[in-house]
Amino acid sequence: MNWVSELQTSGLKISFRIKKVLYRKRSGYQLIEVFDTYEFGRMMMLDRKVMLTQRDEFIYHEMIVHPPVALLGGIKNVLVIGGGDGGTVRELLKYSPERITLVEIDRFVVDASKKFFPEMGKVLDNPVVDIVFEDGAEFVKKIEDRYDLVIVDSTDPVGPGEVLFSEEFISDIFRITDVVAGQTESPFLHREMIAQYHKGLKKFFKNIVFYTANIPTYPSGIWSFTIGVNFEPVIKVKRSFQYYTPEVFECAKNIPPAFRIDA
Amino acid sequence: MNWVSELQTSGLKISFRIKKVLYRKRSGYQLIEVFDTYEFGRMMMLDRKVMLTQRDEFIYHEMIVHPPVALLGGIKNVLVIGGGDGGTVRELLKYSPERITLVEIDRFVVDASKKFFPEMGKVLDNPVVDIVFEDGAEFVKKIEDRYDLVIVDSTDPVGPGEVLFSEEFISDIFRITDVVAGQTESPFLHREMIAQYHKGLKKFFKNIVFYTANIPTYPSGIWSFTIGVNFEPVIKVKRSFQYYTPEVFECAKNIPPAFRIDA
Repeated sequence: MNWVSELQTSGLKISFRIKKVLYRKRSGYQLIEVFDTYEFGRMMMLDRKVMLTQRDEFIYHEMIVHPPVALLGGIKNVLVIGGGDGGTVRELLKYSPERITLVEIDRFVVDASKKFFPEMGKVLDNPVVDIVFEDGAEFVKKIEDRYDLVIVDSTDPVGPGEVLFSEEFISDIFRITDVVAGQTESPFLHREMIAQYHKGLKKFFKNIVFYTANIPTYPSGIWSFTIGVNFEPVIKVKRSFQYYTPEVFECAKNIPPAFRIDA
Repeated sequence: MNWVSELQTSGLKISFRIKKVLYRKRSGYQLIEVFDTYEFGRMMMLDRKVMLTQRDEFIYHEMIVHPPVALLGGIKNVLVIGGGDGGTVRELLKYSPERITLVEIDRFVVDASKKFFPEMGKVLDNPVVDIVFEDGAEFVKKIEDRYDLVIVDSTDPVGPGEVLFSEEFISDIFRITDVVAGQTESPFLHREMIAQYHKGLKKFFKNIVFYTANIPTYPSGIWSFTIGVNFEPVIKVKRSFQYYTPEVFECAKNIPPAFRIDA
């Protein structure tokens, strides 16, 4: 039996039984691997951290996209930082936006997704999607356009994703949008990092919306997302999906005391 | 580095870094082990399944006790099936009941908890607690007393815990109480088992309350609980703890579509 493991920041190790290594590439930024697992379908790992599995990726992608869109009421022009697998774009396309700009640092993530996760990767060929292969932090420094929504679909704040949690990055994002949404790690494991990020976000955005989702293959099984928004955050669209519903979103903001973040 | 692993029903393997094996006993029922881990404090495993860790046991124990008590408004006479570690009793004692009867099949679980988890095990010495070392299914067959509340704090429905999910057991419970609460495994992984249990419960109890909690060290990180109740299930007590609050309980019933159970 072959196993592939992620050594999590919790100190726990989570191991998947794999049938086959489908792809392995050391890009200029990270080690990209795609495995065929027994129980979770195909899985992509970056630097041996689980990015997605076919069995539960819908939870992450629904919960990073539908809450901020619900607050906006609709989208025309969206910027996605990271997210080269295409899952976030797939969810955004459900609202028929005019344009999605995806800024992914690592073109090999896009290549691997198109080949091994066509249910996500193929949407990146949609004509409304512009892909820019560049460092997201560099991109937002120089851009002049404004966006309805910026989604930061980053890796963990170590390695190439680190800069996407910095105050400098937040200030650049603030210049180009009124709504920024991003994944913010585990409220059980990464509490200081989340507090730090919220502190930065509060310096610029009027309101912060913090919520969680159950993602079985991520460390601790509970994951958080944070939206910075410059208007009153009320739900304006009532659509439901496999995990996300407006009620699930309302409830996902109701954090148990032990998981709350004071920033 | 020493690791100890649970091979989960998902096919995933979760491994803890351990400092030391504190206890290991093959009782007549199961293999009981207590480990000192690096990141989760002490951990008890039964047949190499994680039962509890000091770092996150409060979530399980709060969420198996406070929801049914909230629906009752108070408790006088409670029966706990399983739960020999004492965590459930610890939470029940916060409501000053007159009597708690704990029916644990395996006296070595109680011994291990008293010695290695005094924050749970020591409450079992409280004079309102009667401990009966017996098979819970046998106990409820012959008992004549009625209870305000029965809590089924069982292991997984394999091994000694299996019978506690059967329809026969439910019918025996129904004879002695109007409220039964129990852990019902993962809504991501054990969907058929939950559907089966709900089907059985619905034959006897008027209402079913199904809710979830995030338990980082249990398979998939999301766990479910089910209450069978013969009156209208509304919250009558407003107390909050580390994980449980009345609002968290309300929201814990709001299950994402993908995790809902049709029975």
